[in-house]
Amino acid sequence: MNEMNKADIGLIGLAVMGENLVMNMESKGFRVAVYNRHTDRVFKFMEGRGAGKNLIGCHSLEEMVDSLKSPRKVFMMVKAGAPVDELIEQLVPLLSEGDIIIDGGNSFFEDTARRVSYCESKGLLYIGTGVSGGEEGALKGPSLMPGGSPAAWNEVKPILQGICAKVEDGSPCCDWVGEGGAGHFVKMVHNGIEYGDMQLICEAYQLMRCALGMSNEEMCQVFRSWNKTELDSYLIEISGDILAYKDENGESVVDCILDTAGQKGTGKWTAISALNEGIPLTLIGEAVFARCLSAQKEERLKAEALYGHEIPEFTGDKTAFIECIRKALYASKIISYAQGYALMRSAAKEYGWNLNYGGIALMWRGGCIIRSVFLGKIKEAYDKNPQLDNLLMDDYFCGVIKSLLPAWRETVAYAVKVGVPTPAFSAALSYFDGYTTGRLPANLLQAQRDYFGAHTYERVDRPRGEFFHTNWTGCGGDTASGTYNA
Amino acid sequence: MNEMNKADIGLIGLAVMGENLVMNMESKGFRVAVYNRHTDRVFKFMEGRGAGKNLIGCHSLEEMVDSLKSPRKVFMMVKAGAPVDELIEQLVPLLSEGDIIIDGGNSFFEDTARRVSYCESKGLLYIGTGVSGGEEGALKGPSLMPGGSPAAWNEVKPILQGICAKVEDGSPCCDWVGEGGAGHFVKMVHNGIEYGDMQLICEAYQLMRCALGMSNEEMCQVFRSWNKTELDSYLIEISGDILAYKDENGESVVDCILDTAGQKGTGKWTAISALNEGIPLTLIGEAVFARCLSAQKEERLKAEALYGHEIPEFTGDKTAFIECIRKALYASKIISYAQGYALMRSAAKEYGWNLNYGGIALMWRGGCIIRSVFLGKIKEAYDKNPQLDNLLMDDYFCGVIKSLLPAWRETVAYAVKVGVPTPAFSAALSYFDGYTTGRLPANLLQAQRDYFGAHTYERVDRPRGEFFHTNWTGCGGDTASGTYNA
Repeated sequence: MNEMNKADIGLIGLAVMGENLVMNMESKGFRVAVYNRHTDRVFKFMEGRGAGKNLIGCHSLEEMVDSLKSPRKVFMMVKAGAPVDELIEQLVPLLSEGDIIIDGGNSFFEDTARRVSYCESKGLLYIGTGVSGGEEGALKGPSLMPGGSPAAWNEVKPILQGICAKVEDGSPCCDWVGEGGAGHFVKMVHNGIEYGDMQLICEAYQLMRCALGMSNEEMCQVFRSWNKTELDSYLIEISGDILAYKDENGESVVDCILDTAGQKGTGKWTAISALNEGIPLTLIGEAVFARCLSAQKEERLKAEALYGHEIPEFTGDKTAFIECIRKALYASKIISYAQGYALMRSAAKEYGWNLNYGGIALMWRGGCIIRSVFLGKIKEAYDKNPQLDNLLMDDYFCGVIKSLLPAWRETVAYAVKVGVPTPAFSAALSYFDGYTTGRLPANLLQAQRDYFGAHTYERVDRPRGEFFHTNWTGCGGDTASGTYNA
Repeated sequence: MNEMNKADIGLIGLAVMGENLVMNMESKGFRVAVYNRHTDRVFKFMEGRGAGKNLIGCHSLEEMVDSLKSPRKVFMMVKAGAPVDELIEQLVPLLSEGDIIIDGGNSFFEDTARRVSYCESKGLLYIGTGVSGGEEGALKGPSLMPGGSPAAWNEVKPILQGICAKVEDGSPCCDWVGEGGAGHFVKMVHNGIEYGDMQLICEAYQLMRCALGMSNEEMCQVFRSWNKTELDSYLIEISGDILAYKDENGESVVDCILDTAGQKGTGKWTAISALNEGIPLTLIGEAVFARCLSAQKEERLKAEALYGHEIPEFTGDKTAFIECIRKALYASKIISYAQGYALMRSAAKEYGWNLNYGGIALMWRGGCIIRSVFLGKIKEAYDKNPQLDNLLMDDYFCGVIKSLLPAWRETVAYAVKVGVPTPAFSAALSYFDGYTTGRLPANLLQAQRDYFGAHTYERVDRPRGEFFHTNWTGCGGDTASGTYNA
């Protein structure tokens, strides 16, 4: 093929996300070579949405590779896991030194780190990039979080920043995240936060529906009004749309949907990473477990019958309580992001990434599922102090939390009294109360561990790193614990 | 060595737990060969606590193996992880077909499953056994949870059931758990539950100390009185002892202990297993995260100064509220065990273990750190119905929870209002309220996932397994999600 006719980038995997990314790239002036393992999809796409566009339909990997400008850029949109490794194995012998493989799937960050090393050992460059925004984002401008081989960034930057979402001032929602698996780690935390945001909206909905007895129309209006406040965000917006949506018979579709949530694992990964890092990520943890609990539908129905779960009627000022719920949601959301950012800080330290926290907020500010006005405030906080220990330490958020606190406490206390489950609202408040408590009860816990397992403890009146053991029973001896782990 | 003089069992690893297990075995009439990598500990032990006892001190692995009756039983009490694999590598060439290696450390259950297969491939038998009870339990009678090669059980049963704790009627707190890593899995869940139990006691302590302003003496009396109720347990008992304990200057030791909790990872493993199994294990999750938060001491002090965390004085009936706290603790504890048992049920299904849930309660009933009268009630529940979906479905526990519920709600609501962190009490209540809610808000969540990611949903008016997609925006198309994972 004539070099001038070659494509700027190749994309493999023509499911809905892949197709939409191709359409997006083409609309921004890039010539795209497309390929799919089942090649009938290539035909179908080229004759359908792709007809008349600046595309090259390829019927083999070889054909695709041959049709790319050098250094070649191959964007994979295939299922995370083994399919990615298999595809890399097929691509490596076809590519030349300096060519770039990009994985836009939801790969686990440790897999990405491994693939970066592997491809670099073969003379190639590798990028693992988070792509968020769902099918609409892929088409109109997703949030992109690329990381991996730094030398690849300048090569792919025009394309990735060309197709990504932009915020009001034109800043792209895509920037270099870091080496190794950094891009996919940040995307994983994004997804965890997405789990949290969705759970928070569900808890607000459950309170309005079950404790206040509100109709879908009323709740739709509430979400639409909330979307004009600090909560202005994509997920609040679509919640309003969903509550308004009726089928051809005039029935609310949301009421017909089974309340068993699916999940594909990225929320779980985030919680596991937090456990491994030793960073409390309680809200996202509860959000993941809430999906698990929702899946136990049959047991829940039996349990409801056994325990007779009835929510008493609300007798107070409804409008005022709706505002309390909004404040509880906002406060809990701040906690969720504070926890998520704390996790990223810890991982950055462990993996040696120099993460730009304000930049990450900007990447999430537009295009992706968690996009919101609120992320602009997070960007400001980290721009002010890139070394911020915790979002709760920022002056602006400190002031906000203080103003929300009474309503937040009232909402959770009411939910607790009447029996509407608000695991994420509650976990957020417990975390806040724990984080702002200088003296927690862990002294008793350390005493217990020393009592039964001779695990030793530190003292408040002695320097850290000095360990003491008390022979609490008078018969345990003075031997401290060796191999026993409790 | 003359066969008659040979030892019944060999034990490797003379730290405090190992030493105490040796003394325990010897006191029950077993002749024990002992060995330690640093052989000076063997000398020291044989001249010290081991002097004049029915023991054989060995200065090499070969010497130990030669001194054992056939089939040989080698009990390892070494640090979990690589040291166990290294020791197995050293033992395999020394042992003969049918000999038995036992790992009494806190090994990860998947490691144990791998080691069982490996040793069986070498003609040996392998047992991974949980050992709980701390140093005192090891000496006087621990709880033992053995699993692995079934053919080994009859050989080691007399020793393990000889040294373990017994309940009032003489039943041993040790029985065969299952194949592969079953023993260590059950021990892991035990440890997770231990994390939960300790956290619950800490929350009760924090409420009494900070919300009610009680002294250590008063709290000691409360724990001692609670130990005469359904809460009768080792951890409540030692909490009373700890609060009473004063140093030589008459100062309360517990007040001098730094409130930063340590952990060795088994609680974390339990939470990760639950995430992988998709079983809500929220209370233990919060207990693990509470330890992580306690470790952030410097940040907490700064946050306290920034937010001015002050707990208002309690003005109600103190005695009545203490009883509310007790009920909240008891109810939350039931939830924690219900969650832990649900995790075991799920794992048993996945790994093909035929777990005896009543038997597990019996093993935990005595000897171990979580021993309690309460476990007898769990045993009864599973004896009545071994296929119980969830402990909350048992009639007895249903009645108990109903009677505790008002006080539980009141305690959590009060903590939420005044700002004493009670993450485990709260998580337990949220779980209960979620578990007993037939209709959770996950319908909205599924609608959101279908809206932005075309993930599809099931309907309440259609059979499970039929999936629907709505074109919510009118522009997303009718393509359901393929490779994109959210």
